[in-house]
Amino acid sequence: MKKEIRIGLVGCGFMGRTHTNGYKRVGDFFPELNYRPILKAVCARNKEKVAAFAQQWGYESYETDWNRLIARDDIDAIDICTPNNMHAEIAIAAAKAGKMILCEKPLARTLPEAASMVKAIEQARVKNTVWYNYRRIPAVTLAKKIVDSGKLGRIFHYRANFLQDWTINEHLPQGGKAFWRMDANAAGSGVTGDLLAHCIDTAMWLNGAIKDVSAVTETFVKQRMHEETGRLQDVKIDDACIFHCHFENGSLGLFESTRYARGHKALYTFEINGEHGSLKWDLHDLNRLDYFNHRDESELRGWRSILVTDGDQPYMDKWWVPGLSIGYEHSFVHQVADFLHSLESGQACAPSFRDALETQKVCEAVLHSASSGQWQQTDVVWAAETQ
Amino acid sequence: MKKEIRIGLVGCGFMGRTHTNGYKRVGDFFPELNYRPILKAVCARNKEKVAAFAQQWGYESYETDWNRLIARDDIDAIDICTPNNMHAEIAIAAAKAGKMILCEKPLARTLPEAASMVKAIEQARVKNTVWYNYRRIPAVTLAKKIVDSGKLGRIFHYRANFLQDWTINEHLPQGGKAFWRMDANAAGSGVTGDLLAHCIDTAMWLNGAIKDVSAVTETFVKQRMHEETGRLQDVKIDDACIFHCHFENGSLGLFESTRYARGHKALYTFEINGEHGSLKWDLHDLNRLDYFNHRDESELRGWRSILVTDGDQPYMDKWWVPGLSIGYEHSFVHQVADFLHSLESGQACAPSFRDALETQKVCEAVLHSASSGQWQQTDVVWAAETQ
Amino acid sequence: MKKEIRIGLVGCGFMGRTHTNGYKRVGDFFPELNYRPILKAVCARNKEKVAAFAQQWGYESYETDWNRLIARDDIDAIDICTPNNMHAEIAIAAAKAGKMILCEKPLARTLPEAASMVKAIEQARVKNTVWYNYRRIPAVTLAKKIVDSGKLGRIFHYRANFLQDWTINEHLPQGGKAFWRMDANAAGSGVTGDLLAHCIDTAMWLNGAIKDVSAVTETFVKQRMHEETGRLQDVKIDDACIFHCHFENGSLGLFESTRYARGHKALYTFEINGEHGSLKWDLHDLNRLDYFNHRDESELRGWRSILVTDGDQPYMDKWWVPGLSIGYEHSFVHQVADFLHSLESGQACAPSFRDALETQKVCEAVLHSASSGQWQQTDVVWAAETQ
Amino acid sequence: MKKEIRIGLVGCGFMGRTHTNGYKRVGDFFPELNYRPILKAVCARNKEKVAAFAQQWGYESYETDWNRLIARDDIDAIDICTPNNMHAEIAIAAAKAGKMILCEKPLARTLPEAASMVKAIEQARVKNTVWYNYRRIPAVTLAKKIVDSGKLGRIFHYRANFLQDWTINEHLPQGGKAFWRMDANAAGSGVTGDLLAHCIDTAMWLNGAIKDVSAVTETFVKQRMHEETGRLQDVKIDDACIFHCHFENGSLGLFESTRYARGHKALYTFEINGEHGSLKWDLHDLNRLDYFNHRDESELRGWRSILVTDGDQPYMDKWWVPGLSIGYEHSFVHQVADFLHSLESGQACAPSFRDALETQKVCEAVLHSASSGQWQQTDVVWAAETQ
Repeated sequence: MKKEIRIGLVGCGFMGRTHTNGYKRVGDFFPELNYRPILKAVCARNKEKVAAFAQQWGYESYETDWNRLIARDDIDAIDICTPNNMHAEIAIAAAKAGKMILCEKPLARTLPEAASMVKAIEQARVKNTVWYNYRRIPAVTLAKKIVDSGKLGRIFHYRANFLQDWTINEHLPQGGKAFWRMDANAAGSGVTGDLLAHCIDTAMWLNGAIKDVSAVTETFVKQRMHEETGRLQDVKIDDACIFHCHFENGSLGLFESTRYARGHKALYTFEINGEHGSLKWDLHDLNRLDYFNHRDESELRGWRSILVTDGDQPYMDKWWVPGLSIGYEHSFVHQVADFLHSLESGQACAPSFRDALETQKVCEAVLHSASSGQWQQTDVVWAAETQ
Repeated sequence: MKKEIRIGLVGCGFMGRTHTNGYKRVGDFFPELNYRPILKAVCARNKEKVAAFAQQWGYESYETDWNRLIARDDIDAIDICTPNNMHAEIAIAAAKAGKMILCEKPLARTLPEAASMVKAIEQARVKNTVWYNYRRIPAVTLAKKIVDSGKLGRIFHYRANFLQDWTINEHLPQGGKAFWRMDANAAGSGVTGDLLAHCIDTAMWLNGAIKDVSAVTETFVKQRMHEETGRLQDVKIDDACIFHCHFENGSLGLFESTRYARGHKALYTFEINGEHGSLKWDLHDLNRLDYFNHRDESELRGWRSILVTDGDQPYMDKWWVPGLSIGYEHSFVHQVADFLHSLESGQACAPSFRDALETQKVCEAVLHSASSGQWQQTDVVWAAETQ
Repeated sequence: MKKEIRIGLVGCGFMGRTHTNGYKRVGDFFPELNYRPILKAVCARNKEKVAAFAQQWGYESYETDWNRLIARDDIDAIDICTPNNMHAEIAIAAAKAGKMILCEKPLARTLPEAASMVKAIEQARVKNTVWYNYRRIPAVTLAKKIVDSGKLGRIFHYRANFLQDWTINEHLPQGGKAFWRMDANAAGSGVTGDLLAHCIDTAMWLNGAIKDVSAVTETFVKQRMHEETGRLQDVKIDDACIFHCHFENGSLGLFESTRYARGHKALYTFEINGEHGSLKWDLHDLNRLDYFNHRDESELRGWRSILVTDGDQPYMDKWWVPGLSIGYEHSFVHQVADFLHSLESGQACAPSFRDALETQKVCEAVLHSASSGQWQQTDVVWAAETQ
Repeated sequence: MKKEIRIGLVGCGFMGRTHTNGYKRVGDFFPELNYRPILKAVCARNKEKVAAFAQQWGYESYETDWNRLIARDDIDAIDICTPNNMHAEIAIAAAKAGKMILCEKPLARTLPEAASMVKAIEQARVKNTVWYNYRRIPAVTLAKKIVDSGKLGRIFHYRANFLQDWTINEHLPQGGKAFWRMDANAAGSGVTGDLLAHCIDTAMWLNGAIKDVSAVTETFVKQRMHEETGRLQDVKIDDACIFHCHFENGSLGLFESTRYARGHKALYTFEINGEHGSLKWDLHDLNRLDYFNHRDESELRGWRSILVTDGDQPYMDKWWVPGLSIGYEHSFVHQVADFLHSLESGQACAPSFRDALETQKVCEAVLHSASSGQWQQTDVVWAAETQ
């Protein structure tokens, strides 16, 4: 008989859906798990919406106050899918209540917020993880395996970008349910926390720590109507952010994100160049990993387009047959599976809050650098953040 | 309150999984449906396996004799996922019992079998559909929309292939659970019924009826050990099949399928060329549709790579946000949704058994042509089949 | 001091330009050659045009009657770039005059014409070659090297197509300088001789002889105005041709060509699938060869995109530096170089007239099969042709 | 009768070959030109090498002292293909002698050198151009046309990179004929002047001036044997350089170049994102331009892959037929043609020395920024440079 993990989800937007789907699918495809998630309750302020969400997705109950959710005895784990400005408060309360916590990324709006969350969960010694889901796309996981094997040799370059185009329309508002990502108060930052945080998480996972950064940000549309005030207000998020950096292993990094790259919907790509080989990946064709192996016979060298759908490739024994692709949502199923496995093994489920704090430090350094126009050490930021 | 459609699934292999997943996902993503599938029972001969399958996927009960399944009052629809040699018998019995029937493709091993099934379901007037799932991949559905809009003008060419490489190893056996697709008795044919049937279904949906065909087949590995007899026996399926044909609209067709194309896992591609435009699609990158519009400004014409992930594109309002891809399995979810919609509307859910019979006729003509070395009319076959 | 090969070119159209460019470039890039081509004379009927061509390209003189060109003592080699209907007559006369002959493909309009040409040049024992230039694109030459190495193992499939779209406009005429390729009298056939001949030449070079074929042809626009008569006349060429075949090595072949594939300009592609590996090539991206090596480590297998621009790859030591591409025209420079090398070595410069006769046989078999609706042996054709 | 432009080439390395090829091809493909280049003399210090070069390429004579070349009355234009450290001295002398000057890029090693060259040619009022050849690749020229048409609307982003991998081997030397690009004294800088200069030239041509930059450089292999001294010496060039910048039009720029990106030979790519559309280009597939037009019908939008080979596209009426590609070297033929056209029109042939000075300013700013760790205005540099 499987043990139940009773989930209390906070927030029923886009991420509420992806996480819930993860909980619902995991048992079908990972039958070996000893744990199974139970959709116990979902919480959101709007009663009508949360009731409909609970009904549609099969939550047993709903709440409209997250404090009540946390207070419930029949909840083992709190999953935080709210806008960023609620992450810290909820997580800290959940930690104090001894709940496991699965928090949507970025960990928080700011480094101090994030640090307080880490402190709270570490004091409470509760299980925790942050939904940097892209690590669990099989092609990305395979990239990690190749890097760790040493096949690439000394690393020279890492580059990533995350390009979107959905905010070019200057008549889009900021704030509110649909556009909180454009409201600095709710989101903390713009593309840095929303998109670059993903790129940084993957980068440090694959290539180690980042020492220092030099960044620039831009806000192309300076004012937008705020949904809450109904008034035209300054846009305080970064519409675009670019930075270069040094990794601790001596390689150079280059990162770019924007919501103004016409023609790109969610083009997250990364590439790593090493002495003996290189890797490239692209979210728009997520089942593929491109691999260049310099040790191949000289005349026949070329970038290999690996279609990561075979049973001997990460996670793919769980799905269909070779050649048949999976999609974006599967990364969340994998993360749920790995979280449940971590309950069995007793090990942390990466990225933990502490891992995510490292990403937050880099984000903070990036934003500092952009505003100061100076290079920013990531450990200087760390000192600031511990105050 | 939604109406329940109580499913009785026969077969718990690869297709049993894809269909079941379709039933389980559909409510989460198509909340507007008035019907919801209930996983009432699954049936397979091996008690241990079927019990485990029921447990893993959440079927309420299981059977080991499909006659018993059909006899149950608490089953509304029979879903047939067995090897092909069982399709006709089960479908005819289910029709007689007045059950709705969802049958995995190809409809049958042979045209006479298929014709008898159509006769049975039409006499019984039961709801029916055949799982030619690729129609419901959003990019393919979009292709249909473009063709139907007339944007391509007069059609000159249609070509499709379905290339795999999984049977090159001459030590693979034929027959048994895992390799029944290589046993002519169980499968009826090789790549023709397994793979080309998909290509033909899509082709006729997009480009209309096929008049005549000229085919060649090949069996590269002549003998394989049979799982049931343990003896080396002649392989009687087609390892590869190529045919060209005339469509009724005057265009030329070209089809190829093989399990000996090293490097291709499940490379189903099609292309259609018309006077004013062309379309291409590829299962290995299934969220894309390539479209050439000759009416674009001359100097700036080019194949457009359409990433079919936006809310205004087929089915994609049900899933995530622009740029985020879905996978193979979603085509089955869509087919379940369309089947349930058809219950509301009272219309047929294409492809019906009768539609699938047309595909079966072309397959039969292809196999006849290959063995006779002659062109084969598809309506001559029809005459033979009605006897 | 280099020996001079004095060229007499017949025809100053598209091919006259590509060949002339080959003669003019070869010395700059193949300095090791002991022979150098001299542009001695060019011949065409229209005096004004041929004079302008001679002036533009640097021919020392011009003729308006090819008999006079052949009669000249100061010409070593006749290069035939006329419409196909003139190939045989000129080649036979040139052979009788003891000239070397470089003939544009296809060798002739028909197999009997081609056979008479082979007879003539073999009796005269003159140096000869046919401009199947695609063999000399470095990526294609590399494909040959890989096939010959045995790396692919037993071959199962060969497929090629050559897709264009330039004759979709039904108001294009047939005949005359610009449109002789659409006039059966001048061209012999349509896409079969013009485009499939290239595909067949490459195919037999890479994969050996073709035993039998089953073909279909289509003429989509039935009548076009003839430039010479000014009248609407039946179009007698094949607008499209598809055939499948058996190679002598047991593999299946599939070929398609058309001028009605909207969106494709000159899409010549081929693919070969063997037990241990596969190759693909595409004229629209001609510096690349795609190679799948099944012996690569299982988890890391993928199609390698080989950018054939390095000095250790065929011909590329002659050009620039790695990564810098060459174009279509270079294949002719390479063919000139190889022809001049063959003068030094005393060996034949493939494809010889005799090699090209084999391609002509397959073309003839294809056209016979298309008109008879039957499979056609290629050696039965041979018997017919020797009469 | 065409007017002769008598060329005196200095340097007979890689660029000596590409330029010479340009002079030799231009008349064949641009017959309308009233000027024709004459290969009058080539100059290089090594008598044996320069004599062989003259012989191979057809120069009428050679010199071993460039002062003598400039002094000759029978030379109209000096083409400078030497290592960068010779550009200024030769150009200034040639200007004083009243010769036209065609100088290989980058204009000079440093901004002061470049400024002195501009001063000299402007005082002498001699025709001049710098070989930023990539502007003349048809797909790039088409990009310019699209940008200038206003089709892209307001520009948000410009990004470019130039990735190579040829110096990863730590045993390669610096200096000497083959490796002067790795010797700071000969080259001035590493990838900044060699590769990024190309990216910057294209960028400013397409997107206007650059205001300020923030850069980082890296030298991965710190010491290499110097060919001239035979000793291990510090490597003083930049192996890699990354910078971001502001363009004057308000868009953000991002540039990266390296010789340590394993798997990339000469991957020059750029992308520009505007309000209504975007463009992408890639030197490894140079005949294509990717174009996204947001004004296309919503459901059918996608990146168009434009195969730039048709007669209505830039320069392509000069070459073959639609679908047939040209290569890297053709950009030099086009530049020669445009230079000769500029002699007729009396207009400057962009990029002029003055245009190239703007690129040099950006390069200088980039190197300053990298060494200072600060943002660098490009016009501050300008002040420094005029001293």
